[in-house]
Amino acid sequence: MNNALLTHVINHCAVKPDQLALLDSFFEHRIYKKNELLLSEGQRCHEKFFIIKGCTNLFYLKQNGTEQTIDFAIENWWTSDFMAFQQNVVSQFSIRAVETTEVLAITSERQQDLLRQMPELSEYFHGVFQRAYAAAQIRFKLLYGHSKEELYHHFNQKFPAFIQRVPQYLLASFLGITPEYLSEIKKKRIS
Amino acid sequence: MNNALLTHVINHCAVKPDQLALLDSFFEHRIYKKNELLLSEGQRCHEKFFIIKGCTNLFYLKQNGTEQTIDFAIENWWTSDFMAFQQNVVSQFSIRAVETTEVLAITSERQQDLLRQMPELSEYFHGVFQRAYAAAQIRFKLLYGHSKEELYHHFNQKFPAFIQRVPQYLLASFLGITPEYLSEIKKKRIS
Repeated sequence: MNNALLTHVINHCAVKPDQLALLDSFFEHRIYKKNELLLSEGQRCHEKFFIIKGCTNLFYLKQNGTEQTIDFAIENWWTSDFMAFQQNVVSQFSIRAVETTEVLAITSERQQDLLRQMPELSEYFHGVFQRAYAAAQIRFKLLYGHSKEELYHHFNQKFPAFIQRVPQYLLASFLGITPEYLSEIKKKRIS
Repeated sequence: MNNALLTHVINHCAVKPDQLALLDSFFEHRIYKKNELLLSEGQRCHEKFFIIKGCTNLFYLKQNGTEQTIDFAIENWWTSDFMAFQQNVVSQFSIRAVETTEVLAITSERQQDLLRQMPELSEYFHGVFQRAYAAAQIRFKLLYGHSKEELYHHFNQKFPAFIQRVPQYLLASFLGITPEYLSEIKKKRIS
């Protein structure tokens, strides 16, 4: 099994190392090419993904036909439409590989089996989702309190490598602005 | 111990009923009067709260001195500044009782003890935070794709009792509009 998930699990819960060998059989290892879809809006969502290497964006199709990115995931993050995953229903979102992306995928049925056999892993997932929700609370604060330009500067300051890594039209979508306006904001910063 | 948390735990994880008696000693039962603060921005945040009865809002102070509500919590929800709670640092948010509110409070130290003694509870918290994060994903979608007026109609359709329950100036703050504009939207709907 790839070490990335093992390391992440060991760092975040008290699973005994000899139990970790069990993990392997529950996951499917996959590599998605750049622009390939991990999940399509309107399809039943029965998997969640741990990113070993790469980057994905979560988006939905707006009424005007454009894709609205609402989130990204990079190494050591989990991604899915979690409402659809836990209810095993049709997804409201698509997930696409922004670059070549290596993942471990697990279905909800397999996760149930895994947690029955290794209940200690719930401690890991409790931590994963508490951190994700905590980050969402801070993001809501940013969305209410800042202009789009301030949002860009905030992300640029906190995650400079990430800002460089994702295509600028996706970053613009995530910030809720046009690529042209993003370009203007960046020029202003330089001048 | 109050039955609300027991029922919520039993409904969401496989804890054996005879273990549940243990829970009681880890929580502090409190009743907050309307407008009393459960947590103050700038204070160390070392507790999270399960709402037995009542309603709270999570807010922060904007630079112009007004309070920006970013979330509410009602019966069977957990509330806290979760980033500050897990890092045991100063809070970015305040939490206030919107009406008389009965809670069970637990500190991060006590939660660690509780999870050591009842590791099965991590399954419960995994579920709690996965649902909370899933709801946040959908809320981000709504924030990107809808006008403030559409947001009001969405919440009014999905949570009509809640919309009636919270003071309208807090609902306006949550929607990111002025109370006057909320009033206009509601009038338009009636006429």
